[in-house]
Amino acid sequence: MSKQKRFLLNEDELPRQWYNIQADMINKPLPLLNPATREPLTAEDLSHIFANECAKQELDTEHAWIDIPEEVLRRYSYYRSTPLVRAYALEEALGTPAHIYFKNESVNPLGSHKLNSAIPQCYYCKQEGVKNVTTETGAGQWGAALSYAAKSFGLECAVYQVKISMLQKPYRSSIMRTFGATVTGSPSMSTRAGKDIITADPNHPGSLGTAISEAVELATTTPDCKYTLGSVMNHVSLHQSVIGLEAEKQMKMAGEYPDMIIACFGGGSNFGGLAFPFMRHQLKGEGKKIDFIAAEPESCPKLTKGKFEYDFGDTAGYTPLLPMYTLGHEFKPANIHAGGLRYHGAGTIVSQLLKDGYLRGVDIPQLESFDAGLLFARTEGIIPAPESCHAIAATIREAKKCKETGEEKVILFNLSGHGLIDMTAYDSFLNGDLV
Amino acid sequence: MSKQKRFLLNEDELPRQWYNIQADMINKPLPLLNPATREPLTAEDLSHIFANECAKQELDTEHAWIDIPEEVLRRYSYYRSTPLVRAYALEEALGTPAHIYFKNESVNPLGSHKLNSAIPQCYYCKQEGVKNVTTETGAGQWGAALSYAAKSFGLECAVYQVKISMLQKPYRSSIMRTFGATVTGSPSMSTRAGKDIITADPNHPGSLGTAISEAVELATTTPDCKYTLGSVMNHVSLHQSVIGLEAEKQMKMAGEYPDMIIACFGGGSNFGGLAFPFMRHQLKGEGKKIDFIAAEPESCPKLTKGKFEYDFGDTAGYTPLLPMYTLGHEFKPANIHAGGLRYHGAGTIVSQLLKDGYLRGVDIPQLESFDAGLLFARTEGIIPAPESCHAIAATIREAKKCKETGEEKVILFNLSGHGLIDMTAYDSFLNGDLV
Repeated sequence: MSKQKRFLLNEDELPRQWYNIQADMINKPLPLLNPATREPLTAEDLSHIFANECAKQELDTEHAWIDIPEEVLRRYSYYRSTPLVRAYALEEALGTPAHIYFKNESVNPLGSHKLNSAIPQCYYCKQEGVKNVTTETGAGQWGAALSYAAKSFGLECAVYQVKISMLQKPYRSSIMRTFGATVTGSPSMSTRAGKDIITADPNHPGSLGTAISEAVELATTTPDCKYTLGSVMNHVSLHQSVIGLEAEKQMKMAGEYPDMIIACFGGGSNFGGLAFPFMRHQLKGEGKKIDFIAAEPESCPKLTKGKFEYDFGDTAGYTPLLPMYTLGHEFKPANIHAGGLRYHGAGTIVSQLLKDGYLRGVDIPQLESFDAGLLFARTEGIIPAPESCHAIAATIREAKKCKETGEEKVILFNLSGHGLIDMTAYDSFLNGDLV
Repeated sequence: MSKQKRFLLNEDELPRQWYNIQADMINKPLPLLNPATREPLTAEDLSHIFANECAKQELDTEHAWIDIPEEVLRRYSYYRSTPLVRAYALEEALGTPAHIYFKNESVNPLGSHKLNSAIPQCYYCKQEGVKNVTTETGAGQWGAALSYAAKSFGLECAVYQVKISMLQKPYRSSIMRTFGATVTGSPSMSTRAGKDIITADPNHPGSLGTAISEAVELATTTPDCKYTLGSVMNHVSLHQSVIGLEAEKQMKMAGEYPDMIIACFGGGSNFGGLAFPFMRHQLKGEGKKIDFIAAEPESCPKLTKGKFEYDFGDTAGYTPLLPMYTLGHEFKPANIHAGGLRYHGAGTIVSQLLKDGYLRGVDIPQLESFDAGLLFARTEGIIPAPESCHAIAATIREAKKCKETGEEKVILFNLSGHGLIDMTAYDSFLNGDLV
């Protein structure tokens, strides 16, 4: 085992293909359904809202490996590989025999893993002659990444940001505006869906569900406009697989292999991105068994307390019906600071894999998440995003178990983003105002 | 010439020694003077406020190369090398034949180059049995870096932050508190110096000069406490030389050599860090001549409009007398957002080199700096710190000249930090509220 702290890949070692776990799944995800007809949706149906190529990738259960376009590879090389880091200082503070590694997705200019999918989605839109992209965002990590990617491909970008998150972290909308995007708090009066939601509840704090409804409505009522999504969908997990593919090579550089893989869980993009490339061996019955853990907030517990059923992806019911673990599309999450985890449902791939026993969910109270984030900051020097704090908290739980048992387990978690735009959350926590 | 965008060094290629330009200067900097006796200060005198080793480095005009301690090397390897990046997208937007490179010092967890000196300063304090460190900070980049470094070495940390900067960027004090530091706005009523300043001017917005006075007073009246500084002093430029030493190797990887080197200028630490390792060849009359440019704000023009004379480093007159280009230690800078550039004087090394014609200053109006920062963000995807915007503006001026003349000049500038904590400044700019 190396004593090295950081592991980086050279440009020629970067993955040149994404990994599509659907091709290797024993039970494929159930189809998306047209809510009116209950018929399975085709790629052509989906391409009315998504870029054609993304619609195709969404339903592809045949090809395990999909070539990354040259232009996307070129842009990935601007910030990838991201470092795999051994958290020696955190281990020491915990007094654990566990070996803790994290994949640091916070180091790109936009501060989170979201850029990995924003680049290809905007690339495909540009290729297909689209002029405008629209989306929803919670904490704003996806919105920030999309705003930059859109600008760099010459696309206009309109973002609906969850209202409560917009108020909690005003700098994120400033970042999106700096990259030239239009940002609107959701629910808003600018769409039919938003008006209906506000009429029913004038104080609705917004959710990813309300913001998706508004963005989809804008996309379907605007010429040359496509909708893009930062999580939940299969093609997003596909793009995010670069995280796990890199991590696999980097763990080899470190001379270790994970016993556990942990990520926070909103819709599944950072979890799937890290986990699926490792899980592919398990699906084939090969290699060492890994304990895959998705850490969700106690206040939005779809994996641990949700039901597996067909549900809408948004509040207004504009999306296809998705087969998923869900708290119901009208679920109103508490105003926790981890805005990216305030979503009622899990992606269809993760839902099927959870049903089949390949991963487990754990739920983390908000205070425990910030306790973990503070310890991580003070040891490893990186202030983590409130979302990522959930992965850190789950990691610390497991590392403490190792301390009790004396096991030298190898734990790998995903640091999905930094928390520099979330300092009001840390202020509240340090002042004792958080519950 | 490579078409590559980013150039990184392997861990075994990182510099193992700092470069001390004082040893190679033809005219050495004039001595620091005791204000009472007008006698030159010794390292022993300086060690009353600074760590002994820093005091020694400050006056070392003999050794051009100083070993970096193993523990400091280890911590550097956590985030270094920083990338050297070719700004293709910025070049394209400007339509310039110039080749623009930047050294991206914004990628470490604390967001700026300041960590390069915070680590060794805290390391030496720890080695010498010091328990507390204190400092001043403007925008808070130095304060944030020191807070983390202090925590990681088990030292207590007290920071005086310039009051106007604290109000302009509240997240920076949150960051410092997250790392366990005590943060006080300066001028404050907690020191004799602060009380005097407030009594004379109750609305004093603070300056690096007022904050230095308070921090020095705290250090000299507290047991086991040393003062640390993030710029101006020679030992800080020494530590920052890792920037230029890496950049020299990275430019070689890119197959080019700079015609111009540009950095923003507050006290001189990021400028000296990048420039001095390249300037050493010039001092020996070797190699291609480089045009060194220090970019200061129009509202704090010490290099272009200051006088070369002995002056205090702080408002209250607690520091030694420093031979430097200065606007006078009672100069009250305008409330520009580039808080790190609101300092009345230049470091003694840079001042001597400017006098001897090795570099030139340019002054940049605030609006021009944000115009440049916005273009950089929208092309290269990184929102630059308001300080760094000055270097970008100076770079753009030169790149536009190249467009006129058709010259393919190679320009290297220092991206000293990111601007994610300065989004209120970008908001004001985008709203048209800035002058």
